[in-house]
Amino acid sequence: MSLVVVGSVALDTLETPHGRADEVLGGAATYFAIAASFFTPVQLVAVVGDDFPPKELDWLSSRGIDLAGLEVRPGRSLRWSGRYHEDMNVRDTLSFEANVFQTFAPELPESYRDAEFVFLANIAPTLQARVLDQSRNPILVAADTMNYYIEGARADLDALLRRVPLLMINDEEARLLSGERNMVRAARRILDMGPRSLMIKRGEYGVLYFSGDTVFAVPAYPLEQVFDPTGAGDAFAGGTMGYLASCGEVSPASLRRAIVYGSVLASFTVEAFSLERLRALTREEIDQRYRQFVSLTTFDVL
Amino acid sequence: MSLVVVGSVALDTLETPHGRADEVLGGAATYFAIAASFFTPVQLVAVVGDDFPPKELDWLSSRGIDLAGLEVRPGRSLRWSGRYHEDMNVRDTLSFEANVFQTFAPELPESYRDAEFVFLANIAPTLQARVLDQSRNPILVAADTMNYYIEGARADLDALLRRVPLLMINDEEARLLSGERNMVRAARRILDMGPRSLMIKRGEYGVLYFSGDTVFAVPAYPLEQVFDPTGAGDAFAGGTMGYLASCGEVSPASLRRAIVYGSVLASFTVEAFSLERLRALTREEIDQRYRQFVSLTTFDVL
Repeated sequence: MSLVVVGSVALDTLETPHGRADEVLGGAATYFAIAASFFTPVQLVAVVGDDFPPKELDWLSSRGIDLAGLEVRPGRSLRWSGRYHEDMNVRDTLSFEANVFQTFAPELPESYRDAEFVFLANIAPTLQARVLDQSRNPILVAADTMNYYIEGARADLDALLRRVPLLMINDEEARLLSGERNMVRAARRILDMGPRSLMIKRGEYGVLYFSGDTVFAVPAYPLEQVFDPTGAGDAFAGGTMGYLASCGEVSPASLRRAIVYGSVLASFTVEAFSLERLRALTREEIDQRYRQFVSLTTFDVL
Repeated sequence: MSLVVVGSVALDTLETPHGRADEVLGGAATYFAIAASFFTPVQLVAVVGDDFPPKELDWLSSRGIDLAGLEVRPGRSLRWSGRYHEDMNVRDTLSFEANVFQTFAPELPESYRDAEFVFLANIAPTLQARVLDQSRNPILVAADTMNYYIEGARADLDALLRRVPLLMINDEEARLLSGERNMVRAARRILDMGPRSLMIKRGEYGVLYFSGDTVFAVPAYPLEQVFDPTGAGDAFAGGTMGYLASCGEVSPASLRRAIVYGSVLASFTVEAFSLERLRALTREEIDQRYRQFVSLTTFDVL
């Protein structure tokens, strides 16, 4: 089934303890779309400047990503620059240039409006709501957000949360949104704000999923080297939503498998700078690592 | 089968964001022994002063813990006092009085020397080695250690590690011991120092087990409130070793189940101050939470 994603497509400049990459492909919607494209057709809504490398757009197309909703506008593309600490759970934003993204007003092409699965990547809640207004009867809508909107656009975010069945945020965002340090209590408070389900991304510690009285935990895949954590959370979301869209249904069992597939995509993403590892990735490698997750987590039921 | 534990039995004074407890039962060997006692007979080697509350010794006995190796010596018992931060992953030691523990020289009663399972809780590596010298053909020896010995008694610790098949330490200790921040690389370095297997305790993030090419991850049980984290790692070790001793064998399958039982015991331990939750705990509750771990972690194998 069809999966729409709305969010940022950007050029990133990255410094990690392992090296540096200049003006490479980035943006939440990019990571999401590529990760999801291993499972299902993806329809992208975003804006780039006329400086955006055409070869990158060609690559997205070649991955089965529909670019009818990607506006190419005169001007410079969104640019983000960040530096990771030795402890790569910590990063500093060195610069952020919104450029053409500043006036982004997502507009879904008619061919996108019946997509059964919708992902609202991390953009202003009013823009996320605008996408929902244009979307007809999706099976599942999921959203991400960030500290900037939790602190600076709380009323808009609260209104959005009442319309979003699945929220996917990281642990720091969950603490800020709920005012609770403990993850179980944080989840309970957030589920009272509207979402029926919540996935909390914890980086190297994996993912917690909360829905009603259910809790499901998946560890992160233990990697010998995390090369560049950028986009891991977005690739997680893309793998998760992409797998669900490929199932065409959302059941407790398909959701659990989806979270593992999301974790698989996140684990590959951090193995190289930018989206480099995903360029070379195959579905066979994905399924092999899925089986490694089974061996990583399975014990006998007594 | 029999399980010997050597380590500290102490009186703790604890401050957490949830309250304060004065001169309550503590010590690594105490938490270990009580957790293990749900599965197997335990033989305790430790020293206390003549101020130690007799009712606590009676309780240990009533749990099937053999006190033949517990020396009661004139003087004051080991006392530790600590304060947990709002983020309970962080704690300060407020005071430490070794008292009679200062001259502890573990001596295994003859009836302990054929115990098939041996746990060397966190004491000086020379004392841990002394216990190994007295132990005849155990099936499994496991050890814990801490920053103090990693930094201050490294040669002794290195000698011990060559004799210990299973090391159980926390993530901070694994980083310090290996000089590696990444847990997979840290594990690899530590397995090169002697141990065949390694369990890395990560508090609220659960446990990683490394052995050869095998990695097994168990999340911590998601609790709505962590009341007092003291002793969680020791209760984990006690549950793990106690379960293995009850199986009488160490296989890949029994080890995985053991790690889950260890996680179950740790999760109960932190629900109240000191060993209070373990006083009231039943085997039925343990098995019920084991099943909740199944539901927490299970997904379909495709």
